[in-house]
Amino acid sequence: MKKKENKSVSKLKIVPLGGLEQIGMNITAFEYEDSIVVVDCGLAFPADDMLGIDLVIPDVTYLKDNIDKVKGFVITHGHEDHIGALPYVLKEVNVPIYATKLTIALIENKLKEHDLVKGTKRKVIKFGQSVNLGQLRVEFIKTNHSIVDASALAIYSPAGTVVHTGDFKVDYTPVFGDAIDLQRFAEIGKKGVLALMCDSTNAERPGFTQSEKTVGRIFDTLFEEHKNTRIVVATFASNVDRVQQIINTAYKFGRKVVVEGRSMVNTIEIASSLGYLNIPDKTLIEVDQLKNYPPQQQVIIATGSQGESMAALSRMANNMHKKITIGPGDTVIMSSHPIPGNEKAVTKIINELLRKGADVIFQDAHVSGHACQEEIKLIYTLVKPKYAVPTHGEYKHLKAQAKIAESLGIEKDDIFILSSGDVLELSEESAQVTGKVPVGGILVDGLGVGDVGNVVLRDRQHLAEDGILVVVMALDGYSGQLVSGPDIVSRGFVYVRESDELMEEARVVVAAAIQNCVDRGVSDWGKLKSTTRETLGEYVWKKTKRRPMILPIIMEV
Amino acid sequence: MKKKENKSVSKLKIVPLGGLEQIGMNITAFEYEDSIVVVDCGLAFPADDMLGIDLVIPDVTYLKDNIDKVKGFVITHGHEDHIGALPYVLKEVNVPIYATKLTIALIENKLKEHDLVKGTKRKVIKFGQSVNLGQLRVEFIKTNHSIVDASALAIYSPAGTVVHTGDFKVDYTPVFGDAIDLQRFAEIGKKGVLALMCDSTNAERPGFTQSEKTVGRIFDTLFEEHKNTRIVVATFASNVDRVQQIINTAYKFGRKVVVEGRSMVNTIEIASSLGYLNIPDKTLIEVDQLKNYPPQQQVIIATGSQGESMAALSRMANNMHKKITIGPGDTVIMSSHPIPGNEKAVTKIINELLRKGADVIFQDAHVSGHACQEEIKLIYTLVKPKYAVPTHGEYKHLKAQAKIAESLGIEKDDIFILSSGDVLELSEESAQVTGKVPVGGILVDGLGVGDVGNVVLRDRQHLAEDGILVVVMALDGYSGQLVSGPDIVSRGFVYVRESDELMEEARVVVAAAIQNCVDRGVSDWGKLKSTTRETLGEYVWKKTKRRPMILPIIMEV
Repeated sequence: MKKKENKSVSKLKIVPLGGLEQIGMNITAFEYEDSIVVVDCGLAFPADDMLGIDLVIPDVTYLKDNIDKVKGFVITHGHEDHIGALPYVLKEVNVPIYATKLTIALIENKLKEHDLVKGTKRKVIKFGQSVNLGQLRVEFIKTNHSIVDASALAIYSPAGTVVHTGDFKVDYTPVFGDAIDLQRFAEIGKKGVLALMCDSTNAERPGFTQSEKTVGRIFDTLFEEHKNTRIVVATFASNVDRVQQIINTAYKFGRKVVVEGRSMVNTIEIASSLGYLNIPDKTLIEVDQLKNYPPQQQVIIATGSQGESMAALSRMANNMHKKITIGPGDTVIMSSHPIPGNEKAVTKIINELLRKGADVIFQDAHVSGHACQEEIKLIYTLVKPKYAVPTHGEYKHLKAQAKIAESLGIEKDDIFILSSGDVLELSEESAQVTGKVPVGGILVDGLGVGDVGNVVLRDRQHLAEDGILVVVMALDGYSGQLVSGPDIVSRGFVYVRESDELMEEARVVVAAAIQNCVDRGVSDWGKLKSTTRETLGEYVWKKTKRRPMILPIIMEV
Repeated sequence: MKKKENKSVSKLKIVPLGGLEQIGMNITAFEYEDSIVVVDCGLAFPADDMLGIDLVIPDVTYLKDNIDKVKGFVITHGHEDHIGALPYVLKEVNVPIYATKLTIALIENKLKEHDLVKGTKRKVIKFGQSVNLGQLRVEFIKTNHSIVDASALAIYSPAGTVVHTGDFKVDYTPVFGDAIDLQRFAEIGKKGVLALMCDSTNAERPGFTQSEKTVGRIFDTLFEEHKNTRIVVATFASNVDRVQQIINTAYKFGRKVVVEGRSMVNTIEIASSLGYLNIPDKTLIEVDQLKNYPPQQQVIIATGSQGESMAALSRMANNMHKKITIGPGDTVIMSSHPIPGNEKAVTKIINELLRKGADVIFQDAHVSGHACQEEIKLIYTLVKPKYAVPTHGEYKHLKAQAKIAESLGIEKDDIFILSSGDVLELSEESAQVTGKVPVGGILVDGLGVGDVGNVVLRDRQHLAEDGILVVVMALDGYSGQLVSGPDIVSRGFVYVRESDELMEEARVVVAAAIQNCVDRGVSDWGKLKSTTRETLGEYVWKKTKRRPMILPIIMEV
């Protein structure tokens, strides 16, 4: 493509379908004429007000509406917020998946659970390789992150190149494999890059994120300081390098290692079968063998560092674990930081562990997997994009990156803080948001996908706040006379045995109002129900200053 | 009291009725023979799993059971977690209240709301003064905290002296009034102190907490840097010194000040009427006058720094405030840190403000009101107690202070990490936990105090998770035959209009099971209900993997 012919070239569209202004649910469509490539397909964990919801997946109506154009999913790395929605979305958008080896293996593990392995095409791509997807070509570039095999992407189109960092940090001394391929970023940048989409997670933090290897040195120190106790290390199930370092230190100190927590056992199995983990012989033992070793020769690596109540650490702390109980003489290392929103849960488990007599170390045994300000500046300076499109973060993170981009000389008008659904059209000449496509979170509750929406959530919120009063009555089908009731049954409202009087008086009040209606010949059920709601609602508010849900049910007999 | 006569002296009991192993609900009874003095009477905010609960107050059964001994409440300072339960507890334990001037005024403000002013004796005590309460004497000692007029207490008994710090920090250069009376701590220490009960909130943090005055200098800098915009400062309603400093800086820069948020307006009125706030003439204006001044001459001090959805800042950010809207050109200073658990709410409001185009400054414009490790060491070193009883904090905070006490040479056996309800008996010779009194949190929901307990909360949790299915049916009273129903009504389960099939099939399944019972002559309602629960529960689980509450209601006609 020569510059001179640019006029006849179409524009490249970037359409984020999730992941902006929120943490999680990363998915972005890149579209050039009849070709769409989708980068990542993640889930989000439910917000506090999404009561009873298990997880949230993106609305992919836009992909379904353009299904003939969609050439494939290109996945940057194997974290839930980048792969977790695949089993749901694939059912409607069944196109091939391209990713690095470990990422594909983790995706396959998910597909198995949903019985989707057979029907899904998938292809392992190596760093430096490209895949042609219609008129788009996507190159995988090595980066570093809190999970191995993480990749940035160069997306080549006739309208120009976009570099998407995925989630990344710059680790000059990674535990496994190579450092981020900065030379390739530079090379691509030298040839001219239209837009950079860069991870914003740590854009508020000055400086550099430390190397994962620094954590290994901290483990060495901590193990040295606690030679005489059993050591429990809690960390993220997917952080293979972290697990590797714990195992390395354990081996150095002659300790045996037990792994607890299903998700971690899974990851370790997959990672070591693919050669991403190097476990010395006889270091890993089964939990049942623990009894053969004194405490000072034991290390337990556990899930639950975010205070998850059903994870291994929590169960061990609360005597709910069948084989291991944490108590005096144990040293627990929290090798993680609380993810925003989990602070209280983490504090709770720390209190619990301390109360059990354990020594808890919850500082310094963790580094982030995301780039801080100086790393972001480095990538911008290597890639030298015309446009900046900050990605992966809440609004404040995107804004912080926009400020960095501006400080590096990118024009304010060339920086785009997008919302999910925005259609950004790009070319060498111009870039602008030209439209909006439907987006949103689809709620998954048990087997139900999308059958819980705002109405149901509002009801759950209402029920959660003040409970429910069910008012039942039976009317004669012919005469319209009250044959039975009204009776009131409550749940989640007051402790009934101690509120006889209140409930009985409520019944009398409603009965009088209904009888009055019936006597006046009112037979419209809608009217009877609204009378019930109003009368009872008012009475209850006066007596308790609460507004339980009131559910009148009329039976015809 | 001479040492030699000690043998005939009774022991002093310390009975914490709340506030240990939790944040909030501070209340501790000190008992010597026939005299009980109660220090503080605070509320706690509901935990995440206390759905619909407004606040939590301590169970004071122990005080009611010993009402003849209770001589009074001694209150250390005017924060909700130290005074908030008074209006509820006074109804059952009506004894006089002793506190410093501002604290009493804030308590009176509460009593007014509950119409309790008349029936409650209260007395203002000055720093340095003592009050005799039966065989106990309590002296008020000046400290510093994030609310003025905060006090430590020396509690003198024939068995010895206990020093209770209240919530405190060491501020050598406070904004209002004197620095903490370290000389008096030393003097009392010199005479011999049995036990020190010291604030543990910041016991995990090394170093010294900075002086409140440093925040004033930060305001000066920030106002200088944002000379051309309107400035909004969000902070805690009760932090009178903070408000004073914002006003000082505003005055220095020729700006007018509007105060938004009911609780803050209240506090400012009370504080300035008592002389704790010094507001230059014509600096404070009404919100309606704002229009007479250009933005760069305006300052708005607002509540809502914790992200509270109904507070002034939130309403201004979400276009829900009648008179003020925050937008581009506004500078918002968050003069606070998120209290643990509020991180997400605070982040949400920051995102909202940024999205509205405001500049948000959320670092450095706050200092804590609690002592860090070096200050705690200072107090221990001045007071030199025989026993250490860390107070005010979760277990990890208490434990951190215990470690500090140990590092200062206090014997491990002389350090007591108590639980609420523990009875600690002390004398010069020995100290030990000798018993347990009933304690707990009583839930306040609307007007109801204690009518919501575990059963109701469990129901609310259940309803919140998966909603409810109400199954109604009418049986003939004579024949036991099914006359009407079963009908199923759901709330918070699925979006009904899109789940016709599921709900109809569920009805058929239940109807068949019930008809089968009736046909077999089963007339026991309990049996019919359990059949309904089992059949429907199983069906719904199979179809949705959810477990809604199932509420069968049978009517006799």
